[in-house]
Order: sequence, then structure tokens, then C-alpha cells
Amino acid sequence: MFENLIKNFKSYVHFNEEELVFFLSLFEFRVIKKDKKLLQVGQVCNYVSYINNGLMRYSHVIDNTEHTVAFFPENMWVSDYGSFLVRKPSDIAIEALEDTELFLLSYDAVQRAYEKNKVFERFGRIMAERLFLNLVDGASDMRQKSPETRYMELIENHPQIINSVPLKYIASYLGITPESFSRIRKRISTRS
Amino acid sequence: MFENLIKNFKSYVHFNEEELVFFLSLFEFRVIKKDKKLLQVGQVCNYVSYINNGLMRYSHVIDNTEHTVAFFPENMWVSDYGSFLVRKPSDIAIEALEDTELFLLSYDAVQRAYEKNKVFERFGRIMAERLFLNLVDGASDMRQKSPETRYMELIENHPQIINSVPLKYIASYLGITPESFSRIRKRISTRS
Repeated sequence: MFENLIKNFKSYVHFNEEELVFFLSLFEFRVIKKDKKLLQVGQVCNYVSYINNGLMRYSHVIDNTEHTVAFFPENMWVSDYGSFLVRKPSDIAIEALEDTELFLLSYDAVQRAYEKNKVFERFGRIMAERLFLNLVDGASDMRQKSPETRYMELIENHPQIINSVPLKYIASYLGITPESFSRIRKRISTRS
Repeated sequence: MFENLIKNFKSYVHFNEEELVFFLSLFEFRVIKKDKKLLQVGQVCNYVSYINNGLMRYSHVIDNTEHTVAFFPENMWVSDYGSFLVRKPSDIAIEALEDTELFLLSYDAVQRAYEKNKVFERFGRIMAERLFLNLVDGASDMRQKSPETRYMELIENHPQIINSVPLKYIASYLGITPESFSRIRKRISTRS
């Protein structure tokens, strides 16, 4: 059951048996049904969640228009980490695009782990560093890459997203209208 | 000499005497003269630096135009933390706007601290979390706040910047032309 989660831990740190058992005992398991939300705008984000299976979408509203910020397929962590850290209401919504299995780690559970042992501090440090790097790279991509390039990278990195995500969400993620997105898709399919 | 630096540490974690002495021993002291660079575009950022005194500017070049990303007055940490973490060349330049005294912590020194003791892992975690939160807030400010509001906040938070930074750098930081910036300043001075 915890197979993928344990594999994911290893990309951060090495846990010994005792640390692993303790850490796993802190997680809760939950299924979020398709179109249901893990986090609503205005809620404090109380969990970091590992996606064992499924697909989630991260969105926010600016000037009454909803924007898709990111997609999270299986084996990724999802949260509004800013809201989680500062304990303030989120301006983000996180919803399931298909039935999604999650392992959740609550804010309190994370603090218990930090108190327990150095290795969990290291885990938290590396997670924060990666989130920081993701933000830097994401901002630089938005600045420097065309919507077409970002679409090609999305296909390459997460091919499953293309088949399961409504096209309007992908267009919104690319920051373009559904019509422009349709032209890009036509151009790409002619090429291949 | 280390007075402000030690005060800064306390906003992150509590060090006991032994931890404090060890941590301070890892720092190097350096003065960067006005208009000289701490980091050049294309260099790997090898330090996180605490500004004991002075003022620095963070800039990058897009489409042959230089943009001012941020100002760092005394008692702040400065680095290209992305380049520092991943050991890749920076696309950022960091220069002194006046003679600036720094306490520098090298990449190797940071790794030594992480190996030594849990409290340094915690320090590193909280630093990464704050950098993450700064990026989130900065992006949200750019999206949601007018240049005028951002200027008023800059005056309020760092009044010393207004007196010592060339106006063209402030205009670039606000993302507007020097002419628009001049209009904003006129409007504000009429009001007050």
C-alpha cells in the first residue's frame, strides 16, 4: 500500500526502519472523488498530500476569472504550502479531476515529526527547497517559454494529463484562449 | 561585530552557546565596494550572505533589457538560492549600491552545519520556507498591486532605499518607465 510513498521518501532522505514506521504512522488515507475539492478558497491548508493515484488541479481566481495554475498527477505532493506554513486562508482551490487516493500529513503531524528527529527536519528542508526551486523554474518558464513549448513539455512530462484533463483547463494553464490552444494542437498534429 | 547576525539567527531558531560558536566560525567576512558585484550572471552562486551594513541590488536581463528584481538592505540575507542549491550558473547579478559589509556562508560550510546538528537542519528548513513564502508573496504582489501601491510599500518598509537608490532602478523594480515613475512621485508629493 505504501510502496510508492516509500519510494518517494528515498528521493529526499534515507529513513531507517524505526523512522519509517513512525513517519508512516502519521499519515491519513483519503479518497477524493472526481470533481470534489481537497482545498477550497478561503480554507487554511491543513495538509501536505501525496497523490498515490489519480490527478488533481490547482486553480485560483483573478478578476472573476478562474486560472489553472498546475496539474498534479500521481506520485507528486500537493498542498498550498504557503497557507500551510503561515496558517492563513488559501486563495487556491485544489480539486480532483478523477477519483484520487491521497496520503495526507497534517500540520500537527509534521510538527511532531520535526520534534522527533533530525532526519525529518532534513526531509522538511529538502521539501521546502524543492518547492522553492519549482516556483523559480515555473516563473522563469512563464517568462521565457511560448505556450506551444510549455504544451510540448507538458505532453512529454505528463502524457496522462493530455488524455484526462478537459482542454479548457490546459488552455488556461498555458495562459491562452481555447481557440489559440486549438490552433496549436492542429499545428502539432500536422507536424507529427 | 556579530551582534546583528546573532539577533537575526534568533528569528529562525535558538542556538545554545556551543552551536552558536560553531556556526559563527563557518562565516567569512567581506566588503563589496559600491558598484562591484557579489555575483555575476553565469557564475554558480556559492554563498548565502548576511548584509551587516549597506545595500544590494538583484537584477537579471530579459531580451537585452536589465530588470531590477529586488533590493536588499542591511540585516537581510541575499543569494541566488536556486543557483546555490542546484549548483548551476545563475542568471542573476547581485551588486552593491553602496559599500556593503557581508557575512558569507559557503555551500560547503552549510553542508558541514547540516551534518553536525539537527538545529542547523531546522535553520536551513526555515530559511527555505521563508524564501518560498517571499516568492509566493512577491508573485502575488506583482499580479495584484499597482506600481503606486508597491512604491508606497517600498517607502514604508525600506525608507533608506528611496534616498540611496538611483530612480531608474526603482522604476525598473516597479516594472514601469522612468517617466511613469516620475508622474507617480509627483502625485504622491502633492498629496502629502
